[in-house]
Amino acid sequence: MKHIESDSNASLKQWKKLHTRKEREKTGTFLLEGPHLIEEAISFGAKLQHVIIEENFNIKEEWLKEKFTLWSVPAKLMKQLSETEKPQGIIAVCEMMEQPEERIKRNGRYLLIDGVQDPGNLGTIIRTADSAGLDGVFLGEGTADLYNGKTVRSTQGSLFHLPIIKADLKEIITECKAEDVPVISTSLQEAVDMRELPEMNGFALIVGNEGQGVQEMFQEESSINVKIPIFGQAESLNVSVATGILLYELQRKR
Amino acid sequence: MKHIESDSNASLKQWKKLHTRKEREKTGTFLLEGPHLIEEAISFGAKLQHVIIEENFNIKEEWLKEKFTLWSVPAKLMKQLSETEKPQGIIAVCEMMEQPEERIKRNGRYLLIDGVQDPGNLGTIIRTADSAGLDGVFLGEGTADLYNGKTVRSTQGSLFHLPIIKADLKEIITECKAEDVPVISTSLQEAVDMRELPEMNGFALIVGNEGQGVQEMFQEESSINVKIPIFGQAESLNVSVATGILLYELQRKR
Repeated sequence: MKHIESDSNASLKQWKKLHTRKEREKTGTFLLEGPHLIEEAISFGAKLQHVIIEENFNIKEEWLKEKFTLWSVPAKLMKQLSETEKPQGIIAVCEMMEQPEERIKRNGRYLLIDGVQDPGNLGTIIRTADSAGLDGVFLGEGTADLYNGKTVRSTQGSLFHLPIIKADLKEIITECKAEDVPVISTSLQEAVDMRELPEMNGFALIVGNEGQGVQEMFQEESSINVKIPIFGQAESLNVSVATGILLYELQRKR
Repeated sequence: MKHIESDSNASLKQWKKLHTRKEREKTGTFLLEGPHLIEEAISFGAKLQHVIIEENFNIKEEWLKEKFTLWSVPAKLMKQLSETEKPQGIIAVCEMMEQPEERIKRNGRYLLIDGVQDPGNLGTIIRTADSAGLDGVFLGEGTADLYNGKTVRSTQGSLFHLPIIKADLKEIITECKAEDVPVISTSLQEAVDMRELPEMNGFALIVGNEGQGVQEMFQEESSINVKIPIFGQAESLNVSVATGILLYELQRKR
């Protein structure tokens, strides 16, 4: 185990740069905070380059079989590296997951995210897509960064459980059509009530930006536009909640 | 219209204190940010004491019929009063809503919140309860403050659309039983799959803390414990998403 004492240490300085999207994309790595996320990363075969623990943190014996470099730091440096108010004593530098070659398969079940901007919403949506047993999530242009610390924490580890792919959603829609996967777009107008959706096996559900919803060009390309009925006086639902309601509704249509 | 130029102005200082729960409870008032929330407050009869606008903000003509005092401030003072990164040019001091005397009625549909701690989650849950057409929401001990700025903003105005009542959930459960309203608790173990729920008109659904879920004493008092099936590898769902899925599932059981 290596030890760092000073905040001018070059490795520490480099890891801190991973708070920015630019540096994450340059290096292909991101930070993972807390034992739960690190456990998930190891269980699902993600590659950790470095694990940094606070002095006195009890690291799990079996994690030491992994190929990372282990470092210890005093509490005050852990605080600098952490992006949370209460650091949990362990942070890892993790490699971004490889993207699978085959993206859309017949009867697959997918979520397409068109410009969701809040990192917490994005992470929660990925966790929800995992719970609903989807085969993959596609992140369109303008969507928050998957590797933002808030996004990663909100996924609760689901980012390691299913393929999550940055993509041009136009291309994905074309691939879906080629594989007979119906494309369903959420919409607030001229849309089918979700309870009237036909039975279907595979699908690609598009959800959109918090303020604007799904872009019109994608709504036009969809086989069906769907909406969730509102029984009270709210104008709309939060996008993570709406995604959960729709994915569980679609689960019933199989 | 009155004008404030200095940050030592006594009214401004007082309003800034409303960033704390203590001062909100002492005065029975809270801050509302942005034109959308203020529109909702006025439409649903909430009482505004003061409306503070940034110089040059165009306030709606018809709002001026309301009985508040109107103030203008320079951008730098608006920034101090605002709790958001991008202030929207208008903030109001609003009186807390009165709590109705009758809390539970036969065949009513209610949500009981047991210790949800994140203000954003609480606000999103209230917005969802509104969308699902519920008759009221009860906030148990340990639940985030309804009047926290983040909660209020996350409700998107739904806090004005239905009764939201701070209460001892034990008492509420007793009242539900007296009115034959079945109490349903979310639970991760020994619970009925939500798809197997019987038909019911009224209900009181209890949702719990992000980490611990619903307290055992409430689960024991419930008529039914319910869970959402997980089809993938996530361990659980975010509490706002889970609430949405369950409330829309219950909507089908009417």
